[in-house]
Amino acid sequence: MTAPHNLGWISNDNMALLTDLYEFTMAYSYFRSGKNEHATFELFVRELPQDRSFLVSAGLEQILYYLENISFGEESLDYLGTLGLFDTEFLDYLGSFKFTGTVYAIPEGEIYFPPEPVIMVSAPRIEAQIVETFLLNTFNFQSLVASKAARIVLAADGRGVVDFSLRRDHGADAAVKAARASYIAGCLGTSNVLAGMFFDIPVFGTMAHSYVMSFVSEIEAFRRFVKDYPKNSVLLIDTYDTIGGAKNAIKVGKEMKKAGRKLQGLRLDSGDLALLSKKVRGMLDGDGLGYVKIMASGDLNEYRIQDLVKGEAPIDTFGVGTEMGTSRDSPALGGIYKLSCDNLGPRMKLSCGKATLPGKKVLYRCMDTEGMYWKDLIATWDEKVDLPDGYKVLERVMENGSITSDVPSITVIRRRFLGNMEKIPALLKDINNPGSYSVEISENLSRKAEGHLG
Amino acid sequence: MTAPHNLGWISNDNMALLTDLYEFTMAYSYFRSGKNEHATFELFVRELPQDRSFLVSAGLEQILYYLENISFGEESLDYLGTLGLFDTEFLDYLGSFKFTGTVYAIPEGEIYFPPEPVIMVSAPRIEAQIVETFLLNTFNFQSLVASKAARIVLAADGRGVVDFSLRRDHGADAAVKAARASYIAGCLGTSNVLAGMFFDIPVFGTMAHSYVMSFVSEIEAFRRFVKDYPKNSVLLIDTYDTIGGAKNAIKVGKEMKKAGRKLQGLRLDSGDLALLSKKVRGMLDGDGLGYVKIMASGDLNEYRIQDLVKGEAPIDTFGVGTEMGTSRDSPALGGIYKLSCDNLGPRMKLSCGKATLPGKKVLYRCMDTEGMYWKDLIATWDEKVDLPDGYKVLERVMENGSITSDVPSITVIRRRFLGNMEKIPALLKDINNPGSYSVEISENLSRKAEGHLG
Repeated sequence: MTAPHNLGWISNDNMALLTDLYEFTMAYSYFRSGKNEHATFELFVRELPQDRSFLVSAGLEQILYYLENISFGEESLDYLGTLGLFDTEFLDYLGSFKFTGTVYAIPEGEIYFPPEPVIMVSAPRIEAQIVETFLLNTFNFQSLVASKAARIVLAADGRGVVDFSLRRDHGADAAVKAARASYIAGCLGTSNVLAGMFFDIPVFGTMAHSYVMSFVSEIEAFRRFVKDYPKNSVLLIDTYDTIGGAKNAIKVGKEMKKAGRKLQGLRLDSGDLALLSKKVRGMLDGDGLGYVKIMASGDLNEYRIQDLVKGEAPIDTFGVGTEMGTSRDSPALGGIYKLSCDNLGPRMKLSCGKATLPGKKVLYRCMDTEGMYWKDLIATWDEKVDLPDGYKVLERVMENGSITSDVPSITVIRRRFLGNMEKIPALLKDINNPGSYSVEISENLSRKAEGHLG
Repeated sequence: MTAPHNLGWISNDNMALLTDLYEFTMAYSYFRSGKNEHATFELFVRELPQDRSFLVSAGLEQILYYLENISFGEESLDYLGTLGLFDTEFLDYLGSFKFTGTVYAIPEGEIYFPPEPVIMVSAPRIEAQIVETFLLNTFNFQSLVASKAARIVLAADGRGVVDFSLRRDHGADAAVKAARASYIAGCLGTSNVLAGMFFDIPVFGTMAHSYVMSFVSEIEAFRRFVKDYPKNSVLLIDTYDTIGGAKNAIKVGKEMKKAGRKLQGLRLDSGDLALLSKKVRGMLDGDGLGYVKIMASGDLNEYRIQDLVKGEAPIDTFGVGTEMGTSRDSPALGGIYKLSCDNLGPRMKLSCGKATLPGKKVLYRCMDTEGMYWKDLIATWDEKVDLPDGYKVLERVMENGSITSDVPSITVIRRRFLGNMEKIPALLKDINNPGSYSVEISENLSRKAEGHLG
């Protein structure tokens, strides 16, 4: 009794249905009333999540390939037909649906701030509407994780961070995308093998407690492991007792040394990591194993890592899981997608506490004489702005439904992020009391908004 | 320049790589040392997340189909080969890999408590090890959301709850699985069309603010919409001003009534929902539209819903998004997967604060004379237990790698959950000060654990 979708895997054939039903009900009504004029929607975040001083753009690559490939296969159309909401004419329209719009976006790896437009979609209204939910789902999650990972990487202050979140991520897609987003934000790599294959991310990992427990003794497990991995063994030493485990690992490390080989590292996964890392480092150094690295894991986040770094815990690499992959302290980014302009002119929503800025926009980032970012300016599309050291942050990434330029490799994106970290004010990088960054609304845009409100 | 996996879609062909690298490095070492004896691993949760009094089993269906279908395709083997960690003999072994084990599990929709075994996997060690991460990723997330959704459904106290989380869920797979898990836990359905198609879940949704803004006036938008959906229009009334929106909706509702049709509902999405729902209800009733339902949405969780219900806000259905789909207050479930038994006998990990219970186990649930659950008992596999009103909670769901019985439909699973809600102590259903439930460890099992510790 195998149902066709018991595992629930999404593919290019059915991804067009990964959307809220209301996108289709609205689209149908637009279709029936002939309301398919050109419209512009803007994806943006209304406010910074608590304890975030900047956000990192991530997810655009998936969004662009989605837009280039979205179509409705037979199964999807059949299913929509069963809902009893749409007529055949509309289903036929969907059957030949293609996204033909133009997209401007902040490149991946670049930082941004509320309420800056991050992605602007201009397309016939039905097309721009139908893609809303997918864009939000994709961007909100990857940007959420990249923004959290950035804090963790900042706290590690040059020591390595590896994504260990797979088992606690929200499902399968979250796991591969969390690996991608955290790598963009400066992690060294991930434990997630599939993410490694998909996105060309370095993969890390050696052993779990169950491995150690599968042998009669800990030292037998260690000996066996280094035999199979003479060059890259990281031994997990806390299965029974960390100090005892360190002694066993050192014994094995010395045996390797005698044989002309090098033990790569030890991993701590429980207990007082500050104390244990110092003890174990001392033991290693005392036994001539100064080259053996120490990795630590276990419920780490930016604050615990900061404490360890400030306390000079001799940890070389941090394995970070749940806190990074779920952005645990703030597990959702509130990106929204709003109509800003259509054939009726600039549009503005006025709902209580949820007003938007009307019209198409341009985002400028201004640099001081040393090339450091010091403020952003949101202006109207056609406004003449006099900013000698400002550049336009949004790039045209799609035109008439086709990607306009090479999609950057993940290495380029990661480098852009790391470059950004060199250019933002130091205060934004303080994870405890972050400063704020100035995002100005141009006079022209303010007047326009007031005109709508008034 | 289309990379083959730019969208990162997972399929049966590559899902075997959705795992931590260390599963493969360990497996390789077991393989090389001929350590492939039968072993039993247990998936369980160490402690209840804050503000949870019970957990709901969910995700087993996906786990069983994964186990029945896991294999390594050419691309996956090629990628593993590039890592330089494994020899050809091992890659050949993976090339013909099949999971041949036996699985016992708590059925989906049934509640459970820490540290009860939820899934027990007995298989040749390499097989049982390789599937670890996928099982954890799948179970942790679906159980997380089902357990959160259960609280929201309890708070709604008989009023409807619909999943609106797609745009804030952690990626694509999370969205379809959150819809599934929340439906199991008593929601009426979801806005997520793909989840509807995959899992036969009712789908809901009508319009967004952008629809209203796409017309010259709100009332024109409403008139157009009810023309296209004469039977199932829910009008969103807060785009400009909720009371003004209600007046427009009522005007349209009366026009429909005159024409012999019924407006289905209104939706509130911002502002003081208690106050506004009462005002709007009064306006509707005063105009002879008592049959028009009120739906509310906007950052709802179990506490806000409870307040609205206690305050007798006349809301018929709640649309719940972020808080449910990300389990926002506690966004990760710490399920773990531990070796409990192998050829060396019962196994136990002793790491600081992370000890496990040794050996294969049986879980009993005890009912009082009225059929109400009053305690659970974890006993050793072969222990003779005298429980006249206890039943074994774990069922054998897979044998020799094949699913042993019909996988229950989602309707059956949902019914099981709702049945559970009738049988658990009332105190567990208090979302504010939940009582605790007694989970006993049998004397035999305690003695065994002490033996390992001593």
